[in-house]
Amino acid sequence: MKQKDPYTKLHNISKEIATLAAIEGLLEWDQETYMPHGAISLRSSQKEMMASFVHKQKTGPKFSKALKSLIDLETGAVLNPSLPPAKQAALREWRRDYLKLIKLPNSFVKTFAKTTSKALFAWAEAKKKNKFKDFAPHLEKIVSLARKKADLLGFKEHPYDALLDLYEPEMTCKFLTPLFQRLKHSLSDLLKIIQNRPSPQGDFLEDSFSSEKQIAFGHFLLNAMGFEHSSFRLDLSNHPFCMGFHPKDIRMTTKIHPKLLMSNIFSVIHEGGHGLYHTGLPEEEFGSPLGEAISLGIDESQSRWWETRVGRSFSFWKHFYPLLQKEFPEKLNQVSLETFYKAINKVSPSFIRIEADEVTYSMHIILRFEIEKMLIEGALKTKDLPDAWNAKMQELLGICPPNDAEGCLQDIHWSMGAIGYFPTYTLGNLYAAQFFNAYEYQHPNWKDLLEKGDLSQMRYWLKENIHRFGREFTPHEIVKKVTGKELNEKPFIQYLTNKYEHI
Amino acid sequence: MKQKDPYTKLHNISKEIATLAAIEGLLEWDQETYMPHGAISLRSSQKEMMASFVHKQKTGPKFSKALKSLIDLETGAVLNPSLPPAKQAALREWRRDYLKLIKLPNSFVKTFAKTTSKALFAWAEAKKKNKFKDFAPHLEKIVSLARKKADLLGFKEHPYDALLDLYEPEMTCKFLTPLFQRLKHSLSDLLKIIQNRPSPQGDFLEDSFSSEKQIAFGHFLLNAMGFEHSSFRLDLSNHPFCMGFHPKDIRMTTKIHPKLLMSNIFSVIHEGGHGLYHTGLPEEEFGSPLGEAISLGIDESQSRWWETRVGRSFSFWKHFYPLLQKEFPEKLNQVSLETFYKAINKVSPSFIRIEADEVTYSMHIILRFEIEKMLIEGALKTKDLPDAWNAKMQELLGICPPNDAEGCLQDIHWSMGAIGYFPTYTLGNLYAAQFFNAYEYQHPNWKDLLEKGDLSQMRYWLKENIHRFGREFTPHEIVKKVTGKELNEKPFIQYLTNKYEHI
Repeated sequence: MKQKDPYTKLHNISKEIATLAAIEGLLEWDQETYMPHGAISLRSSQKEMMASFVHKQKTGPKFSKALKSLIDLETGAVLNPSLPPAKQAALREWRRDYLKLIKLPNSFVKTFAKTTSKALFAWAEAKKKNKFKDFAPHLEKIVSLARKKADLLGFKEHPYDALLDLYEPEMTCKFLTPLFQRLKHSLSDLLKIIQNRPSPQGDFLEDSFSSEKQIAFGHFLLNAMGFEHSSFRLDLSNHPFCMGFHPKDIRMTTKIHPKLLMSNIFSVIHEGGHGLYHTGLPEEEFGSPLGEAISLGIDESQSRWWETRVGRSFSFWKHFYPLLQKEFPEKLNQVSLETFYKAINKVSPSFIRIEADEVTYSMHIILRFEIEKMLIEGALKTKDLPDAWNAKMQELLGICPPNDAEGCLQDIHWSMGAIGYFPTYTLGNLYAAQFFNAYEYQHPNWKDLLEKGDLSQMRYWLKENIHRFGREFTPHEIVKKVTGKELNEKPFIQYLTNKYEHI
Repeated sequence: MKQKDPYTKLHNISKEIATLAAIEGLLEWDQETYMPHGAISLRSSQKEMMASFVHKQKTGPKFSKALKSLIDLETGAVLNPSLPPAKQAALREWRRDYLKLIKLPNSFVKTFAKTTSKALFAWAEAKKKNKFKDFAPHLEKIVSLARKKADLLGFKEHPYDALLDLYEPEMTCKFLTPLFQRLKHSLSDLLKIIQNRPSPQGDFLEDSFSSEKQIAFGHFLLNAMGFEHSSFRLDLSNHPFCMGFHPKDIRMTTKIHPKLLMSNIFSVIHEGGHGLYHTGLPEEEFGSPLGEAISLGIDESQSRWWETRVGRSFSFWKHFYPLLQKEFPEKLNQVSLETFYKAINKVSPSFIRIEADEVTYSMHIILRFEIEKMLIEGALKTKDLPDAWNAKMQELLGICPPNDAEGCLQDIHWSMGAIGYFPTYTLGNLYAAQFFNAYEYQHPNWKDLLEKGDLSQMRYWLKENIHRFGREFTPHEIVKKVTGKELNEKPFIQYLTNKYEHI
């Protein structure tokens, strides 16, 4: 047998680990979709065991030896400079992940897991009872562990950078703070303009819509987006999500609200955007960074592209609205395309992030970013969180939640220890807008295609320009490569300003 | 922390292994139910990796050390004779499993897996093309590996005993051969009597039945059988099955034939019988032999009890037939309960085992047993299998399959290497009949309850007398314990004879 070259050897080891990690994914997917409720304690043990097994493989001597034979872990220098650039980039990313993992000692990982497992439960109870006080001590522990995590991972300027970097490589407060500051002001100005206009009507979207037909329309949409029957699923779960186990095994979920027509539709198109990204990753690179999504922000740029630039666009519905009407004739035949379009783009400050429109959505994120930063700095005590939250809601959106359940207790992320995660939601919108400009520049005919229901050019463009590279480029590099510019908020603001001129 | 006693230590190690093994189960379940087809190659790797990981744990030093501290592996003597009998029995079973596993070297296990994996594929193709010749070389390898396996496992009298023992502990050819011989003659006599009578009509069962309603009726039946919503699922798959991952996670499947009403109903009740067994195993014994099914034969006795003694009985349908009529009024309102009962119990020799009635079913099994034994003995060459098959079909059922696809290629088992497995199907029927006699003796009122749709007494009796013991007793012991007699064919023959006097 021919001796495998060291790069292939590393890739093979990594592929084995990815194969195991996809089992972890299946355990989670099953839990969220089909698992009988009574199996939860068995499932928790299974997830814990698989996580520990996968962690051991990722940090074990077999992997590290293979990695060290190709790259200097200390300096990051690739030992064989004649390797093609993509492979060098893969080594850079493998090293990046590995160094992060070994910086966190096993005891810390276990404490973190135990703390968040309890916090998750406490959060759900506290939210149900609308009692922030019951969650506060858990959050306090989580903040202190997150701070500890930042110290263990290391950072140059701000401890929050270390946390950000886990989800969005190389993102920093130094970059994000002024960006979000500008964004806040622009969105605030736009919001004022929109709020001075009469609000569109949209009651017809909140009627009674057959669940079966909604599910069928979800499948129809994924089909139109180009999914192949043999490589994806769409199921139901409490919170819509997408898991890409492999380019040939994409699991998306949606939730059917029998009285909210658009909830399922936007969820399906959104998760479909994630799904297409993971379908578009090169299959032969499975298990290598070249077969993985760049970052949460870039992943979110794909879902938001599809949800907002496609699913909330006039052109898209020009083709698809008649088909939707056909499904629900009694509800929609009296509603014109124009009325429908305005209704699905209605702007209105609200308490709940996941229900927010395109204009106010980022305000929710900026709020969380500012609060998280203060928590990590120690400038805000957890006990003062509800007040800080409400004040910021007032400042950013001009409204104040009636209670903490609809305020600072609404999101699951903090109870999971995911501090530093929220910014990626808004980054997704900014990336998407900037990418879209590049696409529009190259394909000025995009609206014509969309109006015919042809989504293939767009899908192909995203695959060619983003998906197929996996993590060859960092988020920063891919934005530069695709758009020629640094990430900035202008295309996003421009897009919203133009769009709302016509609504 | 208090030092754990050695038994608890062993149980905890074994529980961890069972938790992992249940993940293997989930991979299989997902593949059969929801997995996108394109994921098959990823899934194969995942199953292989998990199987190897579980095998390593089961044979590794951690487990064997814990086991050896409690039982002499050589002699089977329990080192602490003051342990309660159930725990001593658990040690006996743990030792039994362990010794079997370590007798098969890793290289053999791998060769076996590789051979059957290829054979499985070849079998499916050969069956499709009706070309036994394409499958013959694979079967030849499998027979020779099965023979090798028998040698590795060891046996006293007949190599087939070693294979039988894998599925039905302590079962032997010496016991089975005369038992099946008597059974064959009795069934043959009964069949002749039945065939001399006019055959009941049953065309109304082969009409067009809404899939949704069929699925709903399946759920309704499981509900009536006493399944709790929080601990089971019923899904669709190509071949109905039941997997009991844990007493709180039972996964059953059925298949809907839009034109065959009873196929789904019998599948659901059959798999439900397996499911109730696994629900009834003591939860606190999860991971120990005391939390496992005794044998495939005993497991099958539960499914056949429910399918035949309940699902094909007049009393059961006295309550449930009006409900079934309500679901399918246009199809069934003109059909009387008596006509329905006779139709679902129609006896008619047929080519396909899984479609056979209660009288001819065992003939299919006896045929396979006799052929398997000859193959293992070397008395039958694989190339001569089709002729031998057809001759035996003629002898046992008086019919000859028109081709090998409906003949010796019909079952998947041989391609999976599962030689020695078939007899457990008939053993299930015999156990069920003998158990049922004991139940009937203790509860002569059972028909009254059944006629009211009350299945709880029966479920309780099975749990109390069989399920709750796990593997505390061997198949032989449990039959003796519950019925006071050795396993024999008389109750089964008596049951069928009585039943068909009235049809």
